[in-house]
Amino acid sequence: MSTPALEVAAQVSGERLWQRLMALAEHGARPDGGVDRQALSEAEIAARATLIGWGREIGLQPYTDELANLFLRLEGRQSDLPAVLVGSHTDSQPTGGKFDGAFGVLAGLEALQAIMISGLRPMRSIEVVAWTNEEASRFAPGMMGSEAFTGRRDPETILAVRDAEGISVAEAVAAVLARDDDVPLRNFRRPVAAFIEPHIEQGPLLEAAGIPVGIVTGIQGTLRYRVRVEGEAAHAGTTPRERRRDALMSALLMIGSVDALCAATGDTLCTVGMLKLEPNAPSVIPASAFFSIDIRQRDNAILDELRRTIPDTLQQLAEPCSVVVNEIAHAESIIFDGGIRERLTAAAERLAIPSMPIYSAAGHDARHLNYVCPTGMLFAPCREGISHNPTESAEPDDLDAGTRVLAHALWELANV
Amino acid sequence: MSTPALEVAAQVSGERLWQRLMALAEHGARPDGGVDRQALSEAEIAARATLIGWGREIGLQPYTDELANLFLRLEGRQSDLPAVLVGSHTDSQPTGGKFDGAFGVLAGLEALQAIMISGLRPMRSIEVVAWTNEEASRFAPGMMGSEAFTGRRDPETILAVRDAEGISVAEAVAAVLARDDDVPLRNFRRPVAAFIEPHIEQGPLLEAAGIPVGIVTGIQGTLRYRVRVEGEAAHAGTTPRERRRDALMSALLMIGSVDALCAATGDTLCTVGMLKLEPNAPSVIPASAFFSIDIRQRDNAILDELRRTIPDTLQQLAEPCSVVVNEIAHAESIIFDGGIRERLTAAAERLAIPSMPIYSAAGHDARHLNYVCPTGMLFAPCREGISHNPTESAEPDDLDAGTRVLAHALWELANV
Repeated sequence: MSTPALEVAAQVSGERLWQRLMALAEHGARPDGGVDRQALSEAEIAARATLIGWGREIGLQPYTDELANLFLRLEGRQSDLPAVLVGSHTDSQPTGGKFDGAFGVLAGLEALQAIMISGLRPMRSIEVVAWTNEEASRFAPGMMGSEAFTGRRDPETILAVRDAEGISVAEAVAAVLARDDDVPLRNFRRPVAAFIEPHIEQGPLLEAAGIPVGIVTGIQGTLRYRVRVEGEAAHAGTTPRERRRDALMSALLMIGSVDALCAATGDTLCTVGMLKLEPNAPSVIPASAFFSIDIRQRDNAILDELRRTIPDTLQQLAEPCSVVVNEIAHAESIIFDGGIRERLTAAAERLAIPSMPIYSAAGHDARHLNYVCPTGMLFAPCREGISHNPTESAEPDDLDAGTRVLAHALWELANV
Repeated sequence: MSTPALEVAAQVSGERLWQRLMALAEHGARPDGGVDRQALSEAEIAARATLIGWGREIGLQPYTDELANLFLRLEGRQSDLPAVLVGSHTDSQPTGGKFDGAFGVLAGLEALQAIMISGLRPMRSIEVVAWTNEEASRFAPGMMGSEAFTGRRDPETILAVRDAEGISVAEAVAAVLARDDDVPLRNFRRPVAAFIEPHIEQGPLLEAAGIPVGIVTGIQGTLRYRVRVEGEAAHAGTTPRERRRDALMSALLMIGSVDALCAATGDTLCTVGMLKLEPNAPSVIPASAFFSIDIRQRDNAILDELRRTIPDTLQQLAEPCSVVVNEIAHAESIIFDGGIRERLTAAAERLAIPSMPIYSAAGHDARHLNYVCPTGMLFAPCREGISHNPTESAEPDDLDAGTRVLAHALWELANV
């Protein structure tokens, strides 16, 4: 027996979705096949213009806000009701791939195109959203757009953040908005009926199980620091060991110890992805070392214990240098809304698409939306679990299957 | 009883020397009082023009060569005899001070001005020299100018080296020579009668002893590597520990082990002054780590043993990453010519200036000249032994005393 939701899902075209994924990947394309499309960059501005164009072609109205979050709205029959949101982000890591973020936005767009093609009109409006600066590679911390939208962080604080070149978020956003062609500005904190974020898994489980759709149960907790070790520049050839204040040697001890603390908990992940020395000259003892620490753990008790321990550990290892430790993010682990998970699971069953529950090790904008509305995520497999890497890859059939499940669930959510 | 050498030394003006040191430090001046005048940069080109101007004012003829080494020649009575050379370098570290290198060049210039003022004319010509790229902060390895001049390294190899922006030494030299105003080009490997390099000590011994002049006995050996660790970029939040190929974690093990090997020898200095990660993004596991190793040791047997051990140690610690180890410099420790040391010591005695023998922990251009002519160095104290640092400092009276000893010895060397 056919239903409107099944009719909509039947209009999803995996081929159109794939073509758009490849076209979007041209913006910021790297010679190695990857994507470098950092937040609010020229490449992302170009991707944004492409998205707005695709949205208008199928009858969606673009909107933005003071953080350049982009919304493409399909107007519902009762346009004053809170809308259903679907999407992810279009920024990437400097050595990113074609699917992280982009799949979520374009799966949402494809689901809305399927609705338009079906000729059906939902009760609630549905909006595809691309949240600003999820990745945190240019401006830290990440997920700025969803944090501001949900009121989880003061927009003024976010707008004051600067990138490595000293450009503020406020300046970068102003440059993006100046390029928009007739896109109305809306306020933050609008009421939302529900949010679904499709995304590649960025892990190996779905591929290993041969299952195309993961229904995400929750997101692990994260803890992020920026650490600045201050030593003293001195001549590499003349300064005896006992007179050295070598910022790198102190930083190495700190990194080794924090990693060991995390390893001792069993499954806590610890990554130092960024480390910069000053003056960074071969014959000068490093005067300062600046590095990031990224910690992930799904057990909030373990995460809290690490949070209590790490700053003191860093301080104790600083001698003969000094250290300043800044916690830039602390996000508890979360569990997504049961109703959304059930609706996605049921949609997969109706469409005879295999699905499985899966836990997210990576953070996503859905984390912040989860505090303001029923929220869920849908994962697609990615090859060998590789992500944040130019070789990131996914199968067109898997993305098609996930988008059909998405379209089914969205239609239902927009009609309750 | 006065002698011509004493008459010359009496014409040395510490005040004029100090004024020139402060004026030269304007080229590449940093807001913190230091100097950033990297090899063949715009700042060094400006410093070069200033030096040529000062030389011409006192009757010296400038010459250069295909590595932009700069010579300011006082013509002797027998101009076909090999000249005596005196000088050092004008390039600095990015966070350098006012004295490293500059003192040697300007002490040489002051000694020649003293000769000109005295109205005496030496038998041999004397040339002040500023060797190109001693510091290795822009182009590696350093001491390029003296290496090419002495034939210790093939000029073609040196000219092909590129800086971090991809600019070759050949291109940078061409840009410098294009700015020279009527400075004749000469060949490398000209015969040299003797070379003296005045320099700040870059260590604490003279200041601690309260002695203004150090007669340098030799230079410790050095060993320098560039190490590239290749891992794999991956998502910081989703990649389990056992699947990681984290280039930074492998690099940390390597750096710790090499430092421990050096510490175990008792007094070997080991410095990792430069370390760069790719992509250097907080939520991406580092795909590669590129770092320098700088090792100093005066016992050639210990240095040779480290040289045999270190590459294997690095290879053994690479797993699960891979590593490429390049030895970019290996210089044995050397002892300077006894005749030059005696002449400097005797000059200090004649002038009643306290002096002491001292060993050089840092490398200098004099290392290469020592292979082709009788060579020596004269050290002046520097405050707290601090060098390669904006706070580098020295006392005008100490620099004056060293320059008088230098002028005395130079006059004698130019008349034998």
